[in-house]
Amino acid sequence: METVDLNSDLGEGFGVWNCGDDAAMLKIVTTANVACGFHAGDPEVMARTFRAALAEGVAVGAHPGWPDLQGFGRRPMRMSEGEIERLVAYQIGAAAGMAAWAGHRLTHVKAHGALANAAAAEAGIAGAVARAVRAVDRDLALLAIALSEQVRAGEAAGLRIVAEIFADRGYDEAGRLVARGLPGAMIEDPEEAAARALVMVTEGAIVTVSGRRLTTPVGSICVHGDGPHAVAAAGLLRRRLIEAGIEPRPFAGT
Amino acid sequence: METVDLNSDLGEGFGVWNCGDDAAMLKIVTTANVACGFHAGDPEVMARTFRAALAEGVAVGAHPGWPDLQGFGRRPMRMSEGEIERLVAYQIGAAAGMAAWAGHRLTHVKAHGALANAAAAEAGIAGAVARAVRAVDRDLALLAIALSEQVRAGEAAGLRIVAEIFADRGYDEAGRLVARGLPGAMIEDPEEAAARALVMVTEGAIVTVSGRRLTTPVGSICVHGDGPHAVAAAGLLRRRLIEAGIEPRPFAGT
Amino acid sequence: METVDLNSDLGEGFGVWNCGDDAAMLKIVTTANVACGFHAGDPEVMARTFRAALAEGVAVGAHPGWPDLQGFGRRPMRMSEGEIERLVAYQIGAAAGMAAWAGHRLTHVKAHGALANAAAAEAGIAGAVARAVRAVDRDLALLAIALSEQVRAGEAAGLRIVAEIFADRGYDEAGRLVARGLPGAMIEDPEEAAARALVMVTEGAIVTVSGRRLTTPVGSICVHGDGPHAVAAAGLLRRRLIEAGIEPRPFAGT
Amino acid sequence: METVDLNSDLGEGFGVWNCGDDAAMLKIVTTANVACGFHAGDPEVMARTFRAALAEGVAVGAHPGWPDLQGFGRRPMRMSEGEIERLVAYQIGAAAGMAAWAGHRLTHVKAHGALANAAAAEAGIAGAVARAVRAVDRDLALLAIALSEQVRAGEAAGLRIVAEIFADRGYDEAGRLVARGLPGAMIEDPEEAAARALVMVTEGAIVTVSGRRLTTPVGSICVHGDGPHAVAAAGLLRRRLIEAGIEPRPFAGT
Repeated sequence: METVDLNSDLGEGFGVWNCGDDAAMLKIVTTANVACGFHAGDPEVMARTFRAALAEGVAVGAHPGWPDLQGFGRRPMRMSEGEIERLVAYQIGAAAGMAAWAGHRLTHVKAHGALANAAAAEAGIAGAVARAVRAVDRDLALLAIALSEQVRAGEAAGLRIVAEIFADRGYDEAGRLVARGLPGAMIEDPEEAAARALVMVTEGAIVTVSGRRLTTPVGSICVHGDGPHAVAAAGLLRRRLIEAGIEPRPFAGT
Repeated sequence: METVDLNSDLGEGFGVWNCGDDAAMLKIVTTANVACGFHAGDPEVMARTFRAALAEGVAVGAHPGWPDLQGFGRRPMRMSEGEIERLVAYQIGAAAGMAAWAGHRLTHVKAHGALANAAAAEAGIAGAVARAVRAVDRDLALLAIALSEQVRAGEAAGLRIVAEIFADRGYDEAGRLVARGLPGAMIEDPEEAAARALVMVTEGAIVTVSGRRLTTPVGSICVHGDGPHAVAAAGLLRRRLIEAGIEPRPFAGT
Repeated sequence: METVDLNSDLGEGFGVWNCGDDAAMLKIVTTANVACGFHAGDPEVMARTFRAALAEGVAVGAHPGWPDLQGFGRRPMRMSEGEIERLVAYQIGAAAGMAAWAGHRLTHVKAHGALANAAAAEAGIAGAVARAVRAVDRDLALLAIALSEQVRAGEAAGLRIVAEIFADRGYDEAGRLVARGLPGAMIEDPEEAAARALVMVTEGAIVTVSGRRLTTPVGSICVHGDGPHAVAAAGLLRRRLIEAGIEPRPFAGT
Repeated sequence: METVDLNSDLGEGFGVWNCGDDAAMLKIVTTANVACGFHAGDPEVMARTFRAALAEGVAVGAHPGWPDLQGFGRRPMRMSEGEIERLVAYQIGAAAGMAAWAGHRLTHVKAHGALANAAAAEAGIAGAVARAVRAVDRDLALLAIALSEQVRAGEAAGLRIVAEIFADRGYDEAGRLVARGLPGAMIEDPEEAAARALVMVTEGAIVTVSGRRLTTPVGSICVHGDGPHAVAAAGLLRRRLIEAGIEPRPFAGT
């Protein structure tokens, strides 16, 4: 039976503040990317998230971002590649420590928000992220945006790459995500999103706005954990995958 | 030949700001406790400190503190034991990640400032710190203030304990550090401090203000890394130890 | 017609995270205490809150707290009185700047959370808060917990005092709030809470657990803005006051 | 007698960490730009700096920067103009509060580091800063880099503009500062820097790398407060001005 990983960004609260319905999402996804305290998350939130993921059999990874709690890591910053490498290394270490505390262990690293966007587009930044992963623990996989600079940099660093696609985002002809705010950026209808994801997984290709196929391995589907309809959309996608004979399963093995 | 460890708190800068002459101290001490970003330190400072320690053959540990950058971790805070356990786990993980990045590895954990004081005096807080160490990596030693609650909690957690004494601080009749500001708190004369340390190491005992001996293993001597005379005083202590046939050496082995 | 102020702590989100239904509360209360960025709030949240308060005719004040975003200012800290005075002054200034930006102006200062508790119980801390208010703008009122050290310190500093009571909290025989977690700490039934507040306002006295009256001016009633039933309870209190011929109105005048 | 203002960025420490010899600089300059807690400074540092400035008769202003303590506000960030406007407003308010606490008062606002560079080059960002000043207190002057977008935006906002030049920096043919790292960026020789400043003040013009004059009002000369030779260079400039019959004096009047 074919399998595919379903990943979501969880543990995105801070202090007294929550974000998204993590308990519900952990019953749907197979892998969780856990914020590491720079753009969201703190030791309490991280501990809770790793424990809950362990209880649900969900694999976990570090989800490092820019040091911008107020902006949720979504605002661009400029740092040297060395600085980026080291702030990612710090966050991976912190996440590994909290996962160990919870009795869980990291399987991967996935960049967050504006850092992920920068690493998808710029080879230098992608390289900094990949080198940080390799330096801290070369057994961690890199969960990378399919066809982006992240993939190339991870391969160059000798990391295991898991390429992810987005069910609810449009892709341009170069295989890049259509920027939010532009026409075609978001697939609002959950059925359409699920159908698209199914096509991309079974065909091993990204589907662009024009319908063109761009071949890529597809190791994981990213589903959003916040927003009013996130849980319903993710649950629908999971059901459609199973109906099509594709088992949602952590890429890292159970 | 007898040996003893010399430890100092290093990497206590932040961003553009420096604190202490780390380069000089790394030529004197055998073990460095490295701030983890909560009361001092950031990924850049930590990376530099771990690299420099590695180059000098100095062993390194995590030096977690209260989340109080402005107060340098010296201001008391109140949190639940669970919160303390988790903020220490986070910092150990972050330090382990940065040490790995630098090609070094942690040998131990030592609490900083007001957190260390609280853990020395209160069994509950000492237990929280010790449990954090065990949960993240039970092979890490606990560098603990001799005769304090830290020692008991570390033993209860099954950790390797390295008891430290302070060359330049006075001890009351219960073996506690005389609080800064009180008479007898500080041994200002470096020769006197070195002589005291020598007595404590060779006799295996803390010397109280009245001259009484309180038996304890002495695995390490803590020397201060900041202040105008820190480097000179630490260098003198090192020489006096060697002259007495006691070799300064990391407790963790070379 | 008699009047009384209804105050609530608003603007308690941070970045992408929200807390409480501020829009609904601003239609009920007459005065808002706005977090200043240390335990909650940031320039965006503050700006939105001041603008919304202005649009609803709600008076605003600074709501300074401990510098502890993760703990929401609810965890005790220890600082010198000078440090407390200056961190309160900073927050008042920041709030005044944001209120000016929004076209509004501050009428008062009210301490938050663990800082408020400390200032209610300890004359030294209460004095630090009061001196900060006087130093930054002596025309600001001090919204003070009735019968607490805050009142005495504010009077000593020559500030206008507005004493507040809590509709949904029990008081011990000394007039202090029963600590959360102890029996009688919370009045869960909104009707009972409203009835109690009405008694306290009309009698000019705090009602203790035993039913004893402790005479005090009552300038304002504090209602909570978060929690699942906060808006309903506050709305009920407002209606009961109006039915009893007591008009909710900012203490600072309209 | 002709006068000119000498301004410097002071109060750039944080917590236990110091930066520059503020005490010495306060005997040389006539105006201090004080960090507001986002890229440097905290309530303690700000309070000390405003008090010391008051004692020396030095005028003070708010020196807002990006929220980046680790990067000292020198790393570029991207935010909306609205966000920039509000984070500047917050910092002006905080600085005004601390100045009031110290018995001093703000005369102006000057942007710091990467925010200042962005505001010099981009009209939108310059406008955001200028609108923040106007919204919080329209009587504050804008201390603006001569011939930059800051000047135009400040004028559009109806603010008093004080144009500053740098004694120790080179200017390109468009009147922009040569970027650090490029040839001609820094005038290392203090005598040459002082001579250049004297020419620019007396001629009312910026001198470019090629020697061309670009006419501009010159209200203030910026001198650096950190670096090993900062105090000596600033002192030399002050003496050369006085010898040339130009009195160093706050632009805001005494």
